[in-house]
Amino acid sequence: MVTFKENLDLLTAWSLIETRVRPLDELEQIDLLSFEGYQTRILGVDVLSRRNLPQYPASAVDGFALKASDTANASPRTPARIPEGSYGWVNTGGGVDRAFDSVVMVEDTSMDGSALLVAKMTTKGENIRPEGEDVTKGQVIARRGDPLDAFLIPLLIASGYSTASVPRLPRTIFIPTGDEIIPAAEWVRGDGGEWGRVPETNSYMLKKLFQDWGFPLEIHGLVRDDEGLIREAALKSLEVYDLVIIGAGTAKGKRDHSAEVIEKLSDPLFRGVRMKPGRPVIAGVRGNKPLVALPGFPMSALVTCWSIINPLLKRLYGETSAPAPEEAVGSAETLNTKFLLHHSSQPGVLEWLRIKCGEIDGTIYSWPLPAGASSTFSIADADGFAILAPSTLEVPKGSDIRILLRKKVDLKKRIVYQGSNDPAIERIVSYVRKRGGDLAIRSVGSLGGLSALARGEGHVASCHLLDPEKGVYNDSYIERLDETRSWRRIKLFKRQQGFLVRKGNPAGIHSVKDLAVTGAFFVNRQPGAGTRVLFDHLLKEAGIDPGLINGYDNIAITHYEAAARIPGGSAVATLGVKAAAEAFGTDFIPVTEEDFELVIPERFIDHPGILILLEALSDERWRSEVDSLGGYRWIS
Amino acid sequence: MVTFKENLDLLTAWSLIETRVRPLDELEQIDLLSFEGYQTRILGVDVLSRRNLPQYPASAVDGFALKASDTANASPRTPARIPEGSYGWVNTGGGVDRAFDSVVMVEDTSMDGSALLVAKMTTKGENIRPEGEDVTKGQVIARRGDPLDAFLIPLLIASGYSTASVPRLPRTIFIPTGDEIIPAAEWVRGDGGEWGRVPETNSYMLKKLFQDWGFPLEIHGLVRDDEGLIREAALKSLEVYDLVIIGAGTAKGKRDHSAEVIEKLSDPLFRGVRMKPGRPVIAGVRGNKPLVALPGFPMSALVTCWSIINPLLKRLYGETSAPAPEEAVGSAETLNTKFLLHHSSQPGVLEWLRIKCGEIDGTIYSWPLPAGASSTFSIADADGFAILAPSTLEVPKGSDIRILLRKKVDLKKRIVYQGSNDPAIERIVSYVRKRGGDLAIRSVGSLGGLSALARGEGHVASCHLLDPEKGVYNDSYIERLDETRSWRRIKLFKRQQGFLVRKGNPAGIHSVKDLAVTGAFFVNRQPGAGTRVLFDHLLKEAGIDPGLINGYDNIAITHYEAAARIPGGSAVATLGVKAAAEAFGTDFIPVTEEDFELVIPERFIDHPGILILLEALSDERWRSEVDSLGGYRWIS
Repeated sequence: MVTFKENLDLLTAWSLIETRVRPLDELEQIDLLSFEGYQTRILGVDVLSRRNLPQYPASAVDGFALKASDTANASPRTPARIPEGSYGWVNTGGGVDRAFDSVVMVEDTSMDGSALLVAKMTTKGENIRPEGEDVTKGQVIARRGDPLDAFLIPLLIASGYSTASVPRLPRTIFIPTGDEIIPAAEWVRGDGGEWGRVPETNSYMLKKLFQDWGFPLEIHGLVRDDEGLIREAALKSLEVYDLVIIGAGTAKGKRDHSAEVIEKLSDPLFRGVRMKPGRPVIAGVRGNKPLVALPGFPMSALVTCWSIINPLLKRLYGETSAPAPEEAVGSAETLNTKFLLHHSSQPGVLEWLRIKCGEIDGTIYSWPLPAGASSTFSIADADGFAILAPSTLEVPKGSDIRILLRKKVDLKKRIVYQGSNDPAIERIVSYVRKRGGDLAIRSVGSLGGLSALARGEGHVASCHLLDPEKGVYNDSYIERLDETRSWRRIKLFKRQQGFLVRKGNPAGIHSVKDLAVTGAFFVNRQPGAGTRVLFDHLLKEAGIDPGLINGYDNIAITHYEAAARIPGGSAVATLGVKAAAEAFGTDFIPVTEEDFELVIPERFIDHPGILILLEALSDERWRSEVDSLGGYRWIS
Repeated sequence: MVTFKENLDLLTAWSLIETRVRPLDELEQIDLLSFEGYQTRILGVDVLSRRNLPQYPASAVDGFALKASDTANASPRTPARIPEGSYGWVNTGGGVDRAFDSVVMVEDTSMDGSALLVAKMTTKGENIRPEGEDVTKGQVIARRGDPLDAFLIPLLIASGYSTASVPRLPRTIFIPTGDEIIPAAEWVRGDGGEWGRVPETNSYMLKKLFQDWGFPLEIHGLVRDDEGLIREAALKSLEVYDLVIIGAGTAKGKRDHSAEVIEKLSDPLFRGVRMKPGRPVIAGVRGNKPLVALPGFPMSALVTCWSIINPLLKRLYGETSAPAPEEAVGSAETLNTKFLLHHSSQPGVLEWLRIKCGEIDGTIYSWPLPAGASSTFSIADADGFAILAPSTLEVPKGSDIRILLRKKVDLKKRIVYQGSNDPAIERIVSYVRKRGGDLAIRSVGSLGGLSALARGEGHVASCHLLDPEKGVYNDSYIERLDETRSWRRIKLFKRQQGFLVRKGNPAGIHSVKDLAVTGAFFVNRQPGAGTRVLFDHLLKEAGIDPGLINGYDNIAITHYEAAARIPGGSAVATLGVKAAAEAFGTDFIPVTEEDFELVIPERFIDHPGILILLEALSDERWRSEVDSLGGYRWIS
């Protein structure tokens, strides 16, 4: 019995598909005159013109058709006088009657009663576009494979065609499965029934991908995690569709039935492709119909769509194809960049990274977004993607890396912000963008931001770092790193920091001591964050060892991320800004008010993006938006 | 009174538009759940998430939720025994009940009756994705201007949205005008009523362009060349649409009413932009509504759409915009090439060339298609376009020129054919393309082809050149040019040449002498064409001076182009191949049978494109297609 080949590399997996799946090779007629069905269609046959274009001798000017011989020796002084009936008006593009063999421009004529005076000699064929000048009858005007675009459609019509023979588009259906999945409409309603559930959004992703690629996609109703039900849905779909995609159920858990279904319904091809994300894809083929199960996590599904589904559609459609992720991504351009971080990659695995980038001092830097296959935000947030070849073991910091951009990024106006996470700063991006600038934020903490600035890896940093010895903020840190004293400091606002605890503070947390005593599960921030520096200072002041804090190593990267865990029950307390407490409706036990400042090296002050940022900092709409977040007090 | 500014450069014309036309700045809601209206929409507002994602502590694995404290000191040897009720199964992505704080993978467990045996210690939060890990409530997940793509749509839905606020798309109508125009359906019917008429195809071109750009377009019924009617149509349209485009009527002839209409209905902006083609564009604005008249010739209309209409749509849509033809063309890539010809350009005018290209010996060459603004075929045939800056006076042969590709061209597999025009060769392109190769043909005549080969500007040439002294074909010409004796010659077929004359030969043409005597209007071929060499030989043989041939300088570039003029009445006779006579139903007076051969320098014999061509030359389907054309006899 044939079984799945497991854990193949992408090209080997593709070769299995290629040997088993033939192009559909069926033609259909589309109506050219109705404006419908134009999207991404290609011609299925060569086309010979049915007409000459022009179809008759056509005038190239507005003027009078006449016989060239009637204008012999004509000049402005001795115009030829042509009697009525021996000339005729003709518009540009109009037909020149067979009785005539020349056209004179209206500017070279005048009237004398009903006679035409012609002030110049004309020659036979002058100002006449002979029939067939553009296209002749029988000429090959287009060939199999040519796209039906804005140029070809008018030509086909002019050549006498009202329809075109095009390859039939493959018909695809996507069958979402999973007990934990609920329909998007139910999810959005948000009546509480969605606890422990996830919305079925992959069908929306696939639908738009297919739209962008120019292929139709039908969405099947949600199917429960039941092997029989999934098999039945797949079997019925195989009767109608050319390609059947099962959503999720690709792992090896007890509720994962996709492999079993594919094994029962088709000749199994492969299970597992050495790519990350996207590894658990499964494929089989029944007759000429591929049956593919996509992993459920969005980024995994996406990579699988780019790597397997897109070339499969092209294969069925008859285009010479092999996996070409660049095309599938629809990348606007590729960009050679310097990598800002060190990244280790699993050998033998093709790895996709979600990337953001920015240009600093003439060098384009890129960095990966820290996100698992389950993250939806990082996909939307990414400027593009880097594909690491299976042979890649590591991408050292500073090495060259090519990225596929999927968004238009104006690198000349984008500034790179590395520094402290702050809700007010997140809101300013829109005000910068409204002014035509752009701001890419990396939340690396106050210390991380200043260090990046010192290394030349950012245009702007931010910090709120308490110097416990002097009791003042930021000065000593900045002075230590800014060796050339060339950083401009903008003291922007004071913000309140405190403990965020559940409504009513049931655990009774008012200090770090309470945390230690109660053992309440805490959310800390990452090393280098100003808020962590503050927390460590509070611990030291109280003489409490970090080891006594339950959750000291339980990390969140942003204030909101930390705060979100309090009402949900994942944690009992965190230290963070008042704005986060307001956003999540937690109680707030104030601890201190700290100075938050922006730091910009002088050499960037005239950067178009920085000029825009500085302008945006004074935008009253932004400031009142920040005021409404709570806990801010403006310094400048 | 305000009047049109005339003959502006494009950027000045655009600045007039920019000062008068504001973005629409209206939002509308689109339904995210219906899969409709996704095409190229962008967000009109910033969006904050309504949900934490995950919305609850979610399991990262398939396994059992439990209390970490219950697994203290557990190991494979001393598993923790957890009684029923103190653990619960959880799927990947499923919610972890508040009663538990950790998840153990199913692989690390076994069952002992109803009790769970856990073979490892777990820590608090292990294998749990805390609520908000991906996205937190209140987080800015997308901003004004972000495209609603396959990545953002699922994120918006997951964040709790079923609709999105997007800028309203501008509404546009195109009003085709012209007495000589007939609707496409009428044209295609071809019942003879179309003599002297041209089909209305610009609406099809515009419709597809707008589709590609993601904007809607309505097409108005055809309007006659009547100022009152056109004005009425435009006025009514201005009540409903944001942008009104009048088709044609932009020249200064007596049936050109667009300028008058725009002057009466709006504040005139400009008339005439210094670009070629596309010069006669006219624009005005009424309120905030632009009224633009496009020139009627297809290439002129196209350039105007790219240069004026596309940025205008973006302007109304609220995108920062300026004329960016590259974007409007939707160019796949740009290519730096060497120009094969000398081209003179009018100073002060932005000129568009239609370009084909090919790579020879590592150099990418490009050449312009010889075509006026009225040609539809050359638009579809072009690989791309070159835009010559207004300052360009000439593009010398061999100079560097950047082209915007609009098709995917596989330069590694494309071969460049320069040489004699022949109907059989035109047909082989499809057989080459079916095999994954490509063939770009320049019909430069037999002599032109051999010279190009000698200059290294082609992969393959063809010729049928009579050496009158020796009475044999090709040898002396090839020997003269192939200095290194490294050209491979493929004697492909013999083909019949003769006079093509109207059915029944009413003019009685049987020889060059008859041509001279009757003065019958002749179609000659261009200098360098083998057929012209033959004609000159016939004249010489008969002792007839070329000056005695009426139409000796009346040129066509291909056999079909010459033949098309015979039945239509533009000419009485031409010299050409029998296949052309068959195609156009003319009488054929045989003159000779000539040797047609292909010539390929040895160094190209292993070129992938040449290998494919050689294969295609033996394709029986091609050969039988050629046989059916008539007049061919195979040599090899």
